[in-house]
Amino acid sequence: MKMKIFTMPEEMQAWATAQKAAGRTIGLCPTMGALHEGHMTLMRAAKEASDIVIASVFVNPTQFAPGEDYEKYPRQFREDCEKLAREGVDAVFHPEPAAMYPAGFGTYVTPDCAETQVLEGARRPIHFRGVATVVTKLMNITRADRAFFGQKDAQQVAVVRRCVEDLNLPVQVTMVPICREESGLARSSRNAYLRPAERKAATVLSRSLRKAETAFTAGERSAERLVALVQEELAGEPLARVDYVALRTFPGLQPVTEVRETCLLALAVFIGTTRLIDNVILEGEA
Amino acid sequence: MKMKIFTMPEEMQAWATAQKAAGRTIGLCPTMGALHEGHMTLMRAAKEASDIVIASVFVNPTQFAPGEDYEKYPRQFREDCEKLAREGVDAVFHPEPAAMYPAGFGTYVTPDCAETQVLEGARRPIHFRGVATVVTKLMNITRADRAFFGQKDAQQVAVVRRCVEDLNLPVQVTMVPICREESGLARSSRNAYLRPAERKAATVLSRSLRKAETAFTAGERSAERLVALVQEELAGEPLARVDYVALRTFPGLQPVTEVRETCLLALAVFIGTTRLIDNVILEGEA
Repeated sequence: MKMKIFTMPEEMQAWATAQKAAGRTIGLCPTMGALHEGHMTLMRAAKEASDIVIASVFVNPTQFAPGEDYEKYPRQFREDCEKLAREGVDAVFHPEPAAMYPAGFGTYVTPDCAETQVLEGARRPIHFRGVATVVTKLMNITRADRAFFGQKDAQQVAVVRRCVEDLNLPVQVTMVPICREESGLARSSRNAYLRPAERKAATVLSRSLRKAETAFTAGERSAERLVALVQEELAGEPLARVDYVALRTFPGLQPVTEVRETCLLALAVFIGTTRLIDNVILEGEA
Repeated sequence: MKMKIFTMPEEMQAWATAQKAAGRTIGLCPTMGALHEGHMTLMRAAKEASDIVIASVFVNPTQFAPGEDYEKYPRQFREDCEKLAREGVDAVFHPEPAAMYPAGFGTYVTPDCAETQVLEGARRPIHFRGVATVVTKLMNITRADRAFFGQKDAQQVAVVRRCVEDLNLPVQVTMVPICREESGLARSSRNAYLRPAERKAATVLSRSLRKAETAFTAGERSAERLVALVQEELAGEPLARVDYVALRTFPGLQPVTEVRETCLLALAVFIGTTRLIDNVILEGEA
């Protein structure tokens, strides 16, 4: 089957509805394009679990604040389609902003909970409202049974899970592990902003997390000391400017002093002017 | 088939999902219970258009502000079920508030548009956020293909339509005409609050609207004069205290001076301590 490309929500939804009427299950992989190997792991997970895979490619304006990188976010739809076709994706949904947010649009999905108020939410106040709104729309448009998100945006996964649970969306959310380069750098479309020296410096993110993870495996349970280990390693990289390092329960994102349940150790770091995020999940014994 | 009763969202959703998997279409009639003949016209419209009819009976706390009538709103679930069974409704969804809004709940559907800011929205600031949230949840829980709402809450229909459109919910919204008593009084669960003299006085609502409608049919197009006709008639009833009388486009709810497109002439009036609403739709030639 040739890969379908839809730009109008109504047409995407009509096609998806026909697929469901034929008894097929639908897996959705929401992306902002500029696809890399990390996205491909989402597609493969979706393909394994669903009859039909729909990838969305949409740089969603409502999750960017003024001054963030909405305008310069990399867009390369043709290359994206080639990659998706090679993975056997069935359909791509690639709407214009005006088709997603037509004149008169005024309904937002507003998650107002621990999951949205800390970490990225504290830095980017409207970000998760935009994410929750567009993900709800995409799930409805594609009639998804399952949706696949990367662990790199772990907080996004927590917010989406909260939103799916709170609104009873009939969708199962799957988190796919972070995909890393050999250097340890988490794959991200924003890595394209990095100059060569910055790309090398950026490996400090995963290195610092690995250091804490090793200590955790060796028995360290103090949140303060685990965070300090990360900060220590980050301090050794002159090109890095720390935005935050935080350790919280996952997916509830509550503060902890001792890691006794599953936790997220997450960070945001500027390398030059590029803001990168990374994280590791520490699996606490209950 | 014996009418099913579900109280847990997960069980309602699983049953609805099985119905859909069997190729059946689902019609949803959301209600707050205390069912009257008006609700039955929704059930009949749903039955005509769908294979399966699900009625929800849920007095939704999030659409009541403190001081409104959440606590005293009439509840009579057993009688409601008898009425629904007689109409051939297939399933009733009757959750506890804690099942709809469990601990940790934090995601609201927030319509922020003309449809929510005027008329009822101006008087009841959180009302339509509560309505949009619960209706989205109910649509998802029941996997509805169609949902049926009464014209008496015409603004609610406009808000739900906006919400369905904005979030791409795969549901068709149908508005069912107002069901009136012989006296002209629009049927409402809140009519139960009226003492006999008040019930008689309450007929002034429909009488005043009919007066304006007659003038409209005879050619009157001035919004100001149509509203004045209603106010004049209401002023003749000593037990009536006007909250608002308004004429706006429908469903956009924009202000108008001349009725040239489809408009809503709506009012809210206190009869004693009971607040009643009523409306008429004026079909303008385009």
